[in-house]
Amino acid sequence: MSDSHLPKRGRGRRPTAEVRAEVLAATGRLLFEEGMSAVTFERIAKEAGASKTTLYKWWPSPGALAAEAYFTRSRPLLEFPDTGDLHADLVTQLTAFVELLTDEGAGRPISELIGAAQLDPDLAEAWTHTYALPRRRLARQRLQAAQQAAQLSMDADLDIMVDQLWGACYHRLLILKTPLRELDIERLVTYAIRGAQ
Amino acid sequence: MSDSHLPKRGRGRRPTAEVRAEVLAATGRLLFEEGMSAVTFERIAKEAGASKTTLYKWWPSPGALAAEAYFTRSRPLLEFPDTGDLHADLVTQLTAFVELLTDEGAGRPISELIGAAQLDPDLAEAWTHTYALPRRRLARQRLQAAQQAAQLSMDADLDIMVDQLWGACYHRLLILKTPLRELDIERLVTYAIRGAQ
Repeated sequence: MSDSHLPKRGRGRRPTAEVRAEVLAATGRLLFEEGMSAVTFERIAKEAGASKTTLYKWWPSPGALAAEAYFTRSRPLLEFPDTGDLHADLVTQLTAFVELLTDEGAGRPISELIGAAQLDPDLAEAWTHTYALPRRRLARQRLQAAQQAAQLSMDADLDIMVDQLWGACYHRLLILKTPLRELDIERLVTYAIRGAQ
Repeated sequence: MSDSHLPKRGRGRRPTAEVRAEVLAATGRLLFEEGMSAVTFERIAKEAGASKTTLYKWWPSPGALAAEAYFTRSRPLLEFPDTGDLHADLVTQLTAFVELLTDEGAGRPISELIGAAQLDPDLAEAWTHTYALPRRRLARQRLQAAQQAAQLSMDADLDIMVDQLWGACYHRLLILKTPLRELDIERLVTYAIRGAQ
């Protein structure tokens, strides 16, 4: 294990951005490996070599920190490609999303995080503003690019498309609890694009 | 208040079906009016005039009872009409669903119930088997009738349609937390039917 993973207290102040990044990385790791119950300020302070006071200053609650950590960790995996082919790009992104929830192990922690958000209005606020609404904006941008490229009607309701594509995945994950791998992503994307024409 | 609402202990045994129906009605009332935290066996036993032992015998947990109560209470409101016009019938049903979640006040208790199910595998099991999967079966039946009536391709993936229609509503309710009333149900239904052709 390299020295850079050890707490650095007493070796002088690290830049804020660096501490923040390490806290988010440690939180993401804990969330994926052990689930929501492991995400406490006590534990994260220890893992990331930051003080609890710092954590309280930056995040109102461990749940808010978990939401940001999930956004940070999943963002590179959930990039929207733009090869010019909307169908192919949506299949690529949704396949990555389903893999994140299955093979990458995000399904359980993310269900727990969304579940806890239903019982805690502050966490719901953090979750929607730090994760869900920003992700919808990214999806909308890709769909708008398709409109500009005349691959999608200018009149298409992009929010409904987002609901139909990612909402379908969440429906199986959270409501039906059926295996996400059984979802035919090709077909889901075909239906959503054809429906909105 | 009529005498029939009072506990009937000591007046002889009521038929099982009657006790069961009263327990479910009392639970549904508590769930809608006060939320999940009010649904305890203690409270329900008192409200329905049943013994806690009976409740424990019939339901493994208050959450399992809440899931069945929600199914029982919402079922008449969520009937699938079959006027022969699939589009109109889906709009009618989804409008009733959204009204249940908004005007009828089910949005908060049902979010709490689904939220708690993410943190409790036994409740998740009760929720999916008592509510979510049976409701999907009812939706599928209506879509199959449309296939028989040649209003929908025999090849259509009905599960994806269910994910796209009701999943869209849950997506706004649980993930985005945006007002469900803003959802254009006419358009959602148009997209789903056209997509699956």
